Amino acid sequence: MASPELEALTQSLARLPGLGPRSARRAVLHLLKKRETALVPLLRALENVADTLATCTICGNVDTRSPCGICADPRRDDRSLCVVEDVADLWALERSRLFPGRFHVLGGRLSALDGIGPNELSIDALVSRIAAGGIDEVVLAMNATLEGQTTAHYIAERIESFPIRLTQLAHGLPVGGELDYLDDGTLAQALRARRPVV
Amino acid sequence: MASPELEALTQSLARLPGLGPRSARRAVLHLLKKRETALVPLLRALENVADTLATCTICGNVDTRSPCGICADPRRDDRSLCVVEDVADLWALERSRLFPGRFHVLGGRLSALDGIGPNELSIDALVSRIAAGGIDEVVLAMNATLEGQTTAHYIAERIESFPIRLTQLAHGLPVGGELDYLDDGTLAQALRARRPVV
Repeated sequence: MASPELEALTQSLARLPGLGPRSARRAVLHLLKKRETALVPLLRALENVADTLATCTICGNVDTRSPCGICADPRRDDRSLCVVEDVADLWALERSRLFPGRFHVLGGRLSALDGIGPNELSIDALVSRIAAGGIDEVVLAMNATLEGQTTAHYIAERIESFPIRLTQLAHGLPVGGELDYLDDGTLAQALRARRPVV
Repeated sequence: MASPELEALTQSLARLPGLGPRSARRAVLHLLKKRETALVPLLRALENVADTLATCTICGNVDTRSPCGICADPRRDDRSLCVVEDVADLWALERSRLFPGRFHVLGGRLSALDGIGPNELSIDALVSRIAAGGIDEVVLAMNATLEGQTTAHYIAERIESFPIRLTQLAHGLPVGGELDYLDDGTLAQALRARRPVV
């Protein structure tokens, strides 16, 4: 691989999550062999995204327009707001197609170690959105990690004075989870949050 | 992921070897979050390669120029020619930096099942290169597969009349190979090709 152009492409691809130097080389070879069906379409797709990329000024989602597709969709329920840490979490929820409302992306989680306090996250913007009214329920969909739950507690305190229903995702056994293989933390959560059999 | 631009980019990435729909989504998220340090460099690298991509008219290597960097390099040894099945094999040998000569890429291997005969490979071009003279040694570096070895045999027959030294890569124990874990075929090769201890 003599040429600097190919080297640069390999290195750019190798920096993507899930790819390393070896798989990036394989990907470059694939692109070179299939110029018209792989390289050119990928190039066009990247161009289109690079030209239109925007962070939604309402919810913080990343899309090719602002307001994003979710905020702009008139069929979504304005009264439910789901708060997530990151764009990836929003996309994961969207893939499930289970949440009909709007989103709010914090842009991370509170983390003393990483020096991320409330001002680094879009928490003030969240409070403003709720204060503006029209929202009945806020779903806290933070990750079930220490930092995620700390963030959820902090947000709950900040917005508890508003006349809204404040909920969070249930913690417990994942679907297909076998007790024998689960960690103690999950088991404890599942037992603590046990529900009456209907 | 509402927007068609993002969907198109995800699908283009998902078609690369080593990436699937899930890892392509993660890669897209990474690109969106790091527009200036990931998305734009990848875009520029792809543009540069797409603009300059060429198949070397001498050896069949894929590069950003023709003749390719190896054929154009005056420091390489014109008298040794290494014949490989595919561009990927050429690159693998180049990474080892062990072969100082020139290459010839066949573009595949003989395969009756896939309908690939001698005319589908650049074997005539190889014969012409050898007939043109100046080559002392031809190294057959086919894969150690049935089809690779069939191809090597065929080429050996085609060029045996030329006054050249015709060699092929040694077959035997791979470095780090333990006898207990090796297949019988490799063991048989290693035993048959055993060499005197110096």
